[in-house]
Amino acid sequence: MKNIILAADIGGTTCKLGIFDSTLIRLKKWSIKTDIKDETGESLIEDIFNAWQASLKDLGFELEDVLGIGIGVPGPVNFETGVVNGAVNLNWPNKVDIPKLLSKHIDCPVFVDNDANVAALGEKHKGAGKGARDVAMITLGTGLGGGMIANDKLVHGHNGSGAEFGHFRVDHDQRFQCNCGKSGCLETVASATGVVNLVNFYYPKLTFKSSILHLIKENKVTAKSVFDAAKEGDQFCIFITERVANHIAYAISVISVMSNPKFVILGGGMSDAGDILIENIKTEYRHLTFNPAQDGTEIVQAELGNDAGIEGAAGLIKTYLIDTKGA
Amino acid sequence: MKNIILAADIGGTTCKLGIFDSTLIRLKKWSIKTDIKDETGESLIEDIFNAWQASLKDLGFELEDVLGIGIGVPGPVNFETGVVNGAVNLNWPNKVDIPKLLSKHIDCPVFVDNDANVAALGEKHKGAGKGARDVAMITLGTGLGGGMIANDKLVHGHNGSGAEFGHFRVDHDQRFQCNCGKSGCLETVASATGVVNLVNFYYPKLTFKSSILHLIKENKVTAKSVFDAAKEGDQFCIFITERVANHIAYAISVISVMSNPKFVILGGGMSDAGDILIENIKTEYRHLTFNPAQDGTEIVQAELGNDAGIEGAAGLIKTYLIDTKGA
Repeated sequence: MKNIILAADIGGTTCKLGIFDSTLIRLKKWSIKTDIKDETGESLIEDIFNAWQASLKDLGFELEDVLGIGIGVPGPVNFETGVVNGAVNLNWPNKVDIPKLLSKHIDCPVFVDNDANVAALGEKHKGAGKGARDVAMITLGTGLGGGMIANDKLVHGHNGSGAEFGHFRVDHDQRFQCNCGKSGCLETVASATGVVNLVNFYYPKLTFKSSILHLIKENKVTAKSVFDAAKEGDQFCIFITERVANHIAYAISVISVMSNPKFVILGGGMSDAGDILIENIKTEYRHLTFNPAQDGTEIVQAELGNDAGIEGAAGLIKTYLIDTKGA
Repeated sequence: MKNIILAADIGGTTCKLGIFDSTLIRLKKWSIKTDIKDETGESLIEDIFNAWQASLKDLGFELEDVLGIGIGVPGPVNFETGVVNGAVNLNWPNKVDIPKLLSKHIDCPVFVDNDANVAALGEKHKGAGKGARDVAMITLGTGLGGGMIANDKLVHGHNGSGAEFGHFRVDHDQRFQCNCGKSGCLETVASATGVVNLVNFYYPKLTFKSSILHLIKENKVTAKSVFDAAKEGDQFCIFITERVANHIAYAISVISVMSNPKFVILGGGMSDAGDILIENIKTEYRHLTFNPAQDGTEIVQAELGNDAGIEGAAGLIKTYLIDTKGA
């Protein structure tokens, strides 16, 4: 009986792998090292397949039991075809057709999506999204990524740029250049990189003393150091935290009138800052946001941590194969 | 055989009615006067039903041939239940349960949605959206409304505030109060009301002479008078048109990284301004927007005019009944 889902969350250092049943109960989870030597991706996909196959056997299953495969990748993906359009962190300079590579080993449906979308789907199915139909996730890391689920489906858009929350202009003074080529993007003021940008911008202008002065002078400021100092009462770091929170709150106020999600989930390393960031976000969000759109909307921390990726990769099969009866 | 769709686009003055076949070919279109005397909505729904029934007979069909009924309403609707939560323009102070009122006359599925969503669906199926899977429509009228379609489905959100494009803050100086209770909303600077707001704000500050001076002094400025004068080369009106276009372009740049629609359709009376508005929007949009998200995205004028409502009302049955095979 075909009731097994194979899942992979491919990262630049490790690949997290999972085996699930068709109700998304996880039967096994483990990691392998990511081999980034082969630019074609072929040997990495083979490594992943071999690891799945060995574990399937250990669990008493056959390849024939596999219903489908879901994969998350750190790069732009054509969701329709499963082709990855290059991935810097994997050393894939060109397109990699993952379903085609896997078809040499196994004959089953393969769904591939980018890691931010997959994490959002994982949180929807098994984490802070509590299965809600409409969910948005903002991933606050070095960059700022996202995933948006409306009517139970990921919003990819016509060329896969749905939920690219990091790349609309919120800093109208355009103080910081963004990696995307524009300036003033949300990512430049609301990611870990953005925190450092704001510290370097404001420090020379303000008269606050700060406990992180030595880090600023040595160019060693991190988002974590700022939030930690804010928690200790450092006025400058509280000021920076409020600026960052206001930008994130603005983004959520926009998301609320676009797709009106039940849950807006904050994930990524920066969300570990906890209340000092999230309570500031909530206060500004309530102040800013169209009242009917904020009504009943909850801003919550992600719950799955590093597991969001494989949970969501498995979730691709649940959402697009099992729950989609031929539609 | 059940292959007939009944459609209504209920407005404050007239109700546009339509009879369609199940492939959305329109068999008849006509209007009746909207009776707003009955606050319960019961007599209006009865008027509409009687009009449909008479026309069905003329066309040689029976009530038994009706597959479903789609209705657009100028007010907030619970899409799941079809209950309208009051409608100022219809003189409905309280909730009106349209499916329940119709069930006294006919036994078939009834879908009710707000007029902006229904217009977007109409343009997707039969107009400027060309059947694309991902479409957004901005309606530029006295207010600024919208509809968003992702993965072929309207994005209602968890409490029906999806695509409320008029109500996020874009004017950070918050110069104008919005009807929603907040200030600085897109609607305050990018609707017909917004055009008048900007004229009144900038006129005392600028040294331009303007051909609309007499209108300003008599408090008779309209969006149309501003765009008409801009087309004639009036520098002040060109300045205002550019400000308005920039705000709309910003909104579209945000929509592009949220749901990444293939078509962004501009409808409503203000879109009749044509190129002087739309070309300015496109220029700023290209300048502002995340490159991958603008790639292949087209900003276009609506095509169906006043027919978008009944086309979309019929489209509700196509999208949610015919194309949704039990999912």
